[in-house]
Amino acid sequence: MGVTIRALEPADQAAWQELYEGYQAFYGHDARPQAFYDAAFARLVSGDARDFHALVAQSAEGALVGLVHYVFHPSLWREDGVCYLQDLFAAPEQRGTGIGRALIEAVYAEADRAGSPAVYWLTAEDNHAGRRLYDRVGVKTPFIRYNRPA
Amino acid sequence: MGVTIRALEPADQAAWQELYEGYQAFYGHDARPQAFYDAAFARLVSGDARDFHALVAQSAEGALVGLVHYVFHPSLWREDGVCYLQDLFAAPEQRGTGIGRALIEAVYAEADRAGSPAVYWLTAEDNHAGRRLYDRVGVKTPFIRYNRPA
Amino acid sequence: MGVTIRALEPADQAAWQELYEGYQAFYGHDARPQAFYDAAFARLVSGDARDFHALVAQSAEGALVGLVHYVFHPSLWREDGVCYLQDLFAAPEQRGTGIGRALIEAVYAEADRAGSPAVYWLTAEDNHAGRRLYDRVGVKTPFIRYNRPA
Amino acid sequence: MGVTIRALEPADQAAWQELYEGYQAFYGHDARPQAFYDAAFARLVSGDARDFHALVAQSAEGALVGLVHYVFHPSLWREDGVCYLQDLFAAPEQRGTGIGRALIEAVYAEADRAGSPAVYWLTAEDNHAGRRLYDRVGVKTPFIRYNRPA
Repeated sequence: MGVTIRALEPADQAAWQELYEGYQAFYGHDARPQAFYDAAFARLVSGDARDFHALVAQSAEGALVGLVHYVFHPSLWREDGVCYLQDLFAAPEQRGTGIGRALIEAVYAEADRAGSPAVYWLTAEDNHAGRRLYDRVGVKTPFIRYNRPA
Repeated sequence: MGVTIRALEPADQAAWQELYEGYQAFYGHDARPQAFYDAAFARLVSGDARDFHALVAQSAEGALVGLVHYVFHPSLWREDGVCYLQDLFAAPEQRGTGIGRALIEAVYAEADRAGSPAVYWLTAEDNHAGRRLYDRVGVKTPFIRYNRPA
Repeated sequence: MGVTIRALEPADQAAWQELYEGYQAFYGHDARPQAFYDAAFARLVSGDARDFHALVAQSAEGALVGLVHYVFHPSLWREDGVCYLQDLFAAPEQRGTGIGRALIEAVYAEADRAGSPAVYWLTAEDNHAGRRLYDRVGVKTPFIRYNRPA
Repeated sequence: MGVTIRALEPADQAAWQELYEGYQAFYGHDARPQAFYDAAFARLVSGDARDFHALVAQSAEGALVGLVHYVFHPSLWREDGVCYLQDLFAAPEQRGTGIGRALIEAVYAEADRAGSPAVYWLTAEDNHAGRRLYDRVGVKTPFIRYNRPA
C-alpha cells in the first residue's frame, strides 16, 4: 500500500492535528479547543513511558494518513500490564487500503517490544466499518463498558 | 447493613485472599498460584499511587465480605485521567445487602478525592446479577472490548 | 412448587387480565384499553390453530400466578415451522419459584405435540432477571431485532 | 441503479435458487438438498397469503440480482399482525448499489398494501455489512433472540 508506519515526531503537529480533528468529528464529538490538541500532542511526543504513545501512517507522498494512540497501564491480573489502544483513525479517502490493520499490528509489535503484549481496545457496538477490521485482527470479548454517571 | 468500607491493610492478607479466590472462581478462572495472590496483595498495599488500590467491606463482626480493586491511568481525552475499577466482589452470602453498591460508591469518592472522577468498569454482557446493580449505579455505554488474539 | 400448568379457559378472563396488565406494566407499556384485553382473550381461547395460544400457572389455592402466550408461524427454513413465545409472565410475588421455567417447558411440550418443536423468543438485552432464567432453559443466539421505523 | 423490484414468478426458479444458494453460503449454512429448494420455491409462488412471499431484484439485463422473503404472522399485541422479513440477499457483485434498500422498501410497501405495516427482521449482531444498511432503513431494538436448545 506504499504506506510507512512510524513514531509521531514533533514536526508532525499540524498534520497530526488535522487527522485527529477528523477522528473527533467521525465520532460526533464536540469541537475541542486548540489547548486540547496542544496538550495531547505534547504528551504524545514527551517520551514519558507511562503516558500515551502515537504511531502514524505516512503515505509515499509524505502525507499523514492514519494515527493510533496507545498507553500501557497496570493490570492486577497480569504483572506485565496491558496496552490500551485508545484512538485509531485513517483518513477517509484511505479506507480499505489496510492502514488500520497496519497501525494495529504496529501497536502489537510495540507492545511486544515493551514486554506488555496484551493489547485491547474498545469500540462502539455499532461501529460496523471498524468492527469489520477488528473481527479480523482481534477477538471480540463479551465485555461491555459501564461509566459512572456524569 | 452494618458494613464498613475501608482501605485494605497489610493484616488483611488471608481474608482478602479468600475473597479474591471466590471472585476468581465466580468468573470461572483457573486456579491461580499462591505467587499470584502474594504479588497482587503486595501491590495493593504498596501505596504506589500509579498502581492498584483496594477497598474492602468489613462486617460488624469483623469479617471481610467484599472487595474492590481500582487503578488510575492516563486518558488522552481527559487531562485528569480515568479510574478503572477492575474487580468487584461480595461474598455470596452477602448478595443483595448493598455491599456492591457501597464499594462502587466508595471508589467514586476516592476518585473524586484523587482529582480523577471519571470511573469506568467492564463486565460480561451476561453477568445479569452484576448488571442489575450496574444499571442502577452506572450508565451502560455502547462500547465493547476487543482483545489482541492470544 | 404446588403449581399446575394448564391451558387458558374462558372462565379465566378476569384473572388472566389482571396478570397480563401486570406484564404490560412490567415492560413499561402504556395502559391498554379494555378492548385490547377483550380481543386478545377472545383470540387466546378461540381454538384457532393459526392464532395465539395461552398456558397459565395455577397455584394450589386456585389463583392464576403466571401466563405464557405463543403462536406457530411458517419458516422458509423449516417445513415444520416455528413456535414463537411472545409473552411470559409470573406474578411478582412468585418470582424465583420456578413458574417461568415450568411455563417455558410446557410450551416446549406443546410445540413437540404440534410437530413444530423449534421454539424461540425475544427479550430485551437488559432484562437481567429474565435472562438469568433464559440462559438456563434456552440458548442465546447472536440475532438482534430491527424494526421498520414508526 | 437500473434494477426493477418485482414479485417472484414460476419462471425464476433456477435463477432464484442460484441466489438463495449464495445466501445460504454467505451465512455459513451447510449445503441444502435440492428438495429444500424445490419445497421453498413451491411455497413462495403458491399464492398462499399465510405462507412466505418473495420479491426479487432484476437487473436491466434481466438477471436476478437480489431477493427478499417475508411472511405475515399474528401478534397478540397488534390486531393487524406483523410482517417478518426472513431472508435478504443481494448478489455480491451488486453490493453497495442500493438493491438491499430497494428490497426492504418494497417489503414495506407490500406490508402497507396488506394492512400489516409493522415489518421486522433479525440479523446477527456481527453482520456489519448488513447492519450499515439496517441502521439507515430500520431501527435497532434492544431485543435479542433465544432459542430452545437443539
